[in-house]
Amino acid sequence: MNYDLIVIGGGPAGYIGAARAGQAGLKTLLVEKRSLGGVCLNEGCIPSKALLNSAKIFDYAKYGEKYGVKAQNVELDHSAVISRKNKVVRVLVSGVRAQLKGSNVNVVEGHARITGRSSDGYAIKVNDETFTGKRLLIATGSEPIIPPIPGAKEGMEAGYVLTNREILDIPNIPQSLVVVGGGIIGLEMASYFNSAGAKVTVIEMLDHIAGNTDREISQILLKNYQKKGVDFKLNSRVVEIQNGTVVYESAGKMEEIKADKVLMSVGRRPAIRDIGLESIDVEIENGAIKTDERGKTNIPEVYAAGDVNGRSMLAHTAYREAEVCVNNMLGRRDIVRYNAIPSVIYTNPEVACVGETEETAREKGIDFEVAKLSMRYSGRYVAENEDGDGICKLLINKKYRNLIGVHMIGSYSSEIIYGAGIMIETELRVRDIKELVFPHPTVSEIIRESIFHFDD
Amino acid sequence: MNYDLIVIGGGPAGYIGAARAGQAGLKTLLVEKRSLGGVCLNEGCIPSKALLNSAKIFDYAKYGEKYGVKAQNVELDHSAVISRKNKVVRVLVSGVRAQLKGSNVNVVEGHARITGRSSDGYAIKVNDETFTGKRLLIATGSEPIIPPIPGAKEGMEAGYVLTNREILDIPNIPQSLVVVGGGIIGLEMASYFNSAGAKVTVIEMLDHIAGNTDREISQILLKNYQKKGVDFKLNSRVVEIQNGTVVYESAGKMEEIKADKVLMSVGRRPAIRDIGLESIDVEIENGAIKTDERGKTNIPEVYAAGDVNGRSMLAHTAYREAEVCVNNMLGRRDIVRYNAIPSVIYTNPEVACVGETEETAREKGIDFEVAKLSMRYSGRYVAENEDGDGICKLLINKKYRNLIGVHMIGSYSSEIIYGAGIMIETELRVRDIKELVFPHPTVSEIIRESIFHFDD
Repeated sequence: MNYDLIVIGGGPAGYIGAARAGQAGLKTLLVEKRSLGGVCLNEGCIPSKALLNSAKIFDYAKYGEKYGVKAQNVELDHSAVISRKNKVVRVLVSGVRAQLKGSNVNVVEGHARITGRSSDGYAIKVNDETFTGKRLLIATGSEPIIPPIPGAKEGMEAGYVLTNREILDIPNIPQSLVVVGGGIIGLEMASYFNSAGAKVTVIEMLDHIAGNTDREISQILLKNYQKKGVDFKLNSRVVEIQNGTVVYESAGKMEEIKADKVLMSVGRRPAIRDIGLESIDVEIENGAIKTDERGKTNIPEVYAAGDVNGRSMLAHTAYREAEVCVNNMLGRRDIVRYNAIPSVIYTNPEVACVGETEETAREKGIDFEVAKLSMRYSGRYVAENEDGDGICKLLINKKYRNLIGVHMIGSYSSEIIYGAGIMIETELRVRDIKELVFPHPTVSEIIRESIFHFDD
Repeated sequence: MNYDLIVIGGGPAGYIGAARAGQAGLKTLLVEKRSLGGVCLNEGCIPSKALLNSAKIFDYAKYGEKYGVKAQNVELDHSAVISRKNKVVRVLVSGVRAQLKGSNVNVVEGHARITGRSSDGYAIKVNDETFTGKRLLIATGSEPIIPPIPGAKEGMEAGYVLTNREILDIPNIPQSLVVVGGGIIGLEMASYFNSAGAKVTVIEMLDHIAGNTDREISQILLKNYQKKGVDFKLNSRVVEIQNGTVVYESAGKMEEIKADKVLMSVGRRPAIRDIGLESIDVEIENGAIKTDERGKTNIPEVYAAGDVNGRSMLAHTAYREAEVCVNNMLGRRDIVRYNAIPSVIYTNPEVACVGETEETAREKGIDFEVAKLSMRYSGRYVAENEDGDGICKLLINKKYRNLIGVHMIGSYSSEIIYGAGIMIETELRVRDIKELVFPHPTVSEIIRESIFHFDD
């Protein structure tokens, strides 16, 4: 069967790309080997948020007394949380299916492999059937990196070393959980399992958690979780995993730690293997499909979007990249701008950032100014957070006076940050932002409070 | 003593105006008769949010089972809630005091009265002392309207008829509470006292609650609170209040309802009495000080900002108006734009709106299109809201394709709406908004989902 477009992968890039193409009248096929919605919907962003929401409610109930709420025998029923999470995922997967159907996209389940190119287009083999597409959108996503640590592979086979996929479905809360890698996934899972009663230890090779997050904010996050009982081993490297024990090196010394379960969350890599990229010579760079800002690969009419291009590894970047690919397929020039893509860590407190950090601004040689304010300058924050230690940090370009970075830790940061992205994207200057009206009382006002620390 | 600027009133307009003027080098005096922060901080926005936050936590604990959280004997300790509220208010009032001090503003406590004008400026008498200001900023705010209902005045004197001021401090939850007026204040208090265990009835003269809020949204809010047990008497008019009973007329029939306490929340009016406006002939229109878009009254160098100008009666409008007044005093031309001022109702679910409603757009003869989407198109909303029935509604100008209104009911709406205001303020078109990157998964994405229902 011949298509205008074949999309390989049904995650955020794949299903949005397919839907937009179908809506625009392209005859579109989407191939997904596991479950529509991809990692994000089935074993990432969404299920983790269902778990973290339950943990937040549990923490409120358990520690509500400071807000005048008393409760006894507060329990988190992990199996009920998992059932509900599964229901949420089912609902949303069926939503994606309906969206694709409504966009006239054909969906085939199976492993897609590119087998070559003919005058009709690119040949894709799925379950022994061959489809031809004038265009391809490769959106195969990413997979967890399993570092070559002795015992890791055996642990995965035996079921005590887990990735993001398996940990979201374990039936019982382990007594002890060691999280290898203190990035976003590691921290979110540490947060849930700590609330749920596990003794959680996070082992991180760097001297800080949360990757490229603003350092002051990652430090505040660290302190919050230390206070909640999570143990952090920074500057530490796991050297061996046994059933029940993780061995790590710290400051030249070998240490051991008890671990009923181990979460491996050291990072993700583009899923480029076993899909036949070599059959049409798609260029790979640093383990990712190389694309330009329009999503084009080196091969005509072959596009790639989402994690597989190795650029940002975020679902919302994938959405936008896929739309840019489809716009360009349709002859409408469009590019992805990467300067205002927010990122969020759904811990409690939440962390959200967009634009330049002090580190990246310095690296790029941007002359910038910083304003940093306690979240306690927001009346709502004070009203809702006993002993909150959140902050908001703004960066502006010193010469042009426009906003270039916003970094927050505190309640609602996840929902506030998109607006900061808009300010960066629309190149608002200090003076423009001072004229904006923020509703009172909201935590979002902290941006307004902070901007007044800059001269126009 | 002679000042460059005398500010009458220490609420949002007054304290921000005074602080900005002081920072800019104007010798500034602020006069406040009750408590710095005004109604908003002491008996409005902030204390109500402290109460509603406790109610939300209580509701989570009590009804958490659907999220896998079990708890027994869940209680809301109202007196603990009130104590905490008082602490929050104290902290924030001292913050305002510190901000004024840091801005070199002198603060005098007492009732200010304008007594006349001389070549030095305007004379203001406070506690038998007279101050002179070259400029005046009148920011006396507003006061609750007490309608001439038989028994209302006696009820207030006897303490069973309350305004927003008194209800925030009652020591015990009444068995039955009748809320007269289903606007923002009435609904927020109905929400708290319903959660806290009172039998709440809201009596509203109109056929809908929540004032000028989008009608579909006010209907959804109504249904949510009916489900929670609040009784609504729409198209109903209170005709008499006795101790223990409220008599109202509905469809031509007289009805009675039990009421241990009555909250009078039919609206607010500018506080223009007893401050000597007549001594310098400040023009009054419809019970408010008449101002132009720069905040100027009819009298040279006399400005007014905040509720007293009768324009919007929102704290955040007051902030902006005060800043505009001070900018104009300093010779920097600035005006208030009223087209993108958000408003929020902190019920559960929250309601937030900005820009035109379908009603106002029709009245103004704007040719517009509407997109309406269930909040369930947001993955985070589904993950966090069992049976949520929120919606998001966007209005665009049909010809220019720019966003002109956003209306939401659902979680986090209060914190999301400022970003929608920015889009309206910066006149983003459908196509521009489609190119924005919203973090996934957030409820804010519902704006992105909705915008794709419009053609470019």
